[in-house]
Amino acid sequence: MLVEVVLTAQDLQHHPVEGKNVVVIDALRATSTIITALANGCTGVIPVREPEEANELAAKKHGGYLLGGERNSIKIPGFDLGNSPLEYRPEVVSGKQLILCTTNGTQAIALSSKARQLIIAAFLNVAAVAAWLGREARDVVLACAGTKGKFSLEDFLAAGAIVQHLQGKLAAVDLTDPALAARAAFLQSAAQLPGILRQGKHAQGLAALGLEEDVLFCAEIDKYPLVPIYREGSIRVEEQSAASF
Amino acid sequence: MLVEVVLTAQDLQHHPVEGKNVVVIDALRATSTIITALANGCTGVIPVREPEEANELAAKKHGGYLLGGERNSIKIPGFDLGNSPLEYRPEVVSGKQLILCTTNGTQAIALSSKARQLIIAAFLNVAAVAAWLGREARDVVLACAGTKGKFSLEDFLAAGAIVQHLQGKLAAVDLTDPALAARAAFLQSAAQLPGILRQGKHAQGLAALGLEEDVLFCAEIDKYPLVPIYREGSIRVEEQSAASF
Repeated sequence: MLVEVVLTAQDLQHHPVEGKNVVVIDALRATSTIITALANGCTGVIPVREPEEANELAAKKHGGYLLGGERNSIKIPGFDLGNSPLEYRPEVVSGKQLILCTTNGTQAIALSSKARQLIIAAFLNVAAVAAWLGREARDVVLACAGTKGKFSLEDFLAAGAIVQHLQGKLAAVDLTDPALAARAAFLQSAAQLPGILRQGKHAQGLAALGLEEDVLFCAEIDKYPLVPIYREGSIRVEEQSAASF
Repeated sequence: MLVEVVLTAQDLQHHPVEGKNVVVIDALRATSTIITALANGCTGVIPVREPEEANELAAKKHGGYLLGGERNSIKIPGFDLGNSPLEYRPEVVSGKQLILCTTNGTQAIALSSKARQLIIAAFLNVAAVAAWLGREARDVVLACAGTKGKFSLEDFLAAGAIVQHLQGKLAAVDLTDPALAARAAFLQSAAQLPGILRQGKHAQGLAALGLEEDVLFCAEIDKYPLVPIYREGSIRVEEQSAASF
């Protein structure tokens, strides 16, 4: 089983994903927000790239949808919610569907359309994702969304956490160089993860906007043991498929 | 002082280096070979991209030059030496100049022509390079050559070793996300470096060619405390500038 780590959404454009399980990681904050919303009872997340697309879709659906998303880390005007996982509390999202518009994470999802299956991961669910990937026993691409086309510390470390879990579980895992490096960097950082993440550029930008609590929240490992799967335009926790493993 | 890590020679094409000190790292094996040759008395290394260019240059110089280099890790036909640092022994290189033709390292050097100063590094000289960069007190780009356009474990870890030294020496070092990640990966790997490097794709390719000893040699940290500088087409150890610090 080959485990690759792709370092940015930009690199993903040139990376073959056909027949592989792709894991999209945008730990600050899109995939952490998706996981949190689903954990708190949201019934499905539709990722979109542009605010206009989100508004059009919501209008078509005649209500019942929450609109969430950000541009430059700030809530899109007129939307119900921003991109902070802390906003996606049970009383806000339970029983509702969400249309989510984010910069980097949504782009990475769009670029992975040829994947066999597309999974959503962040620190919040690394063990559950690794267990699912191990049961699937297919080649894996851990796709770091990065920030505006650039390498992001937090996505690389979250990828490393999944690599570490996979290597612990499976006898024969073939790791690419970025996967080996991500694993080493995660192992070095695991014991002091919030402090390490706070040194990253994206976390510093969030802190400057008063969003440091988001970073702490997203740094929690395995808070939500669930595996969100993207299928036919929507991200859901598939209870049925989970039970069949 | 900003310390950046650029992950591949390809990424270096789009990365601004003007006014910065650039450190080219191709630990397996070009920069390790250059450092070893200079440590063993070679008086200068002229890096070239193509074998034809090497032959033409040697013909012009009317002898006195050694020709070294590889294509796909194998010695170029008709050349004096390949790209194994073990070949560059004192009795072979002392007092001679070298024309070196390699795939990834030479390309990274060519892409750094706008740098303020261009330094050559590998595990063999990380402490000396970091000390030199610290004295210079200028922004630094640690340029990993990578392998055929791809991220290389060994170059990333060597960059991380330099970051770690710099952070230990200087009060105010601003690290980019790849620099933070490289440092963490190096710290995790330092105690077992040869074993970790051997897991990398390039090292495995060298092992398959019977060149595993090269990997062990290149994994030695701080074997040669010298700083090769590229200037006007040639790489030399500048004793004069070293003395002035």
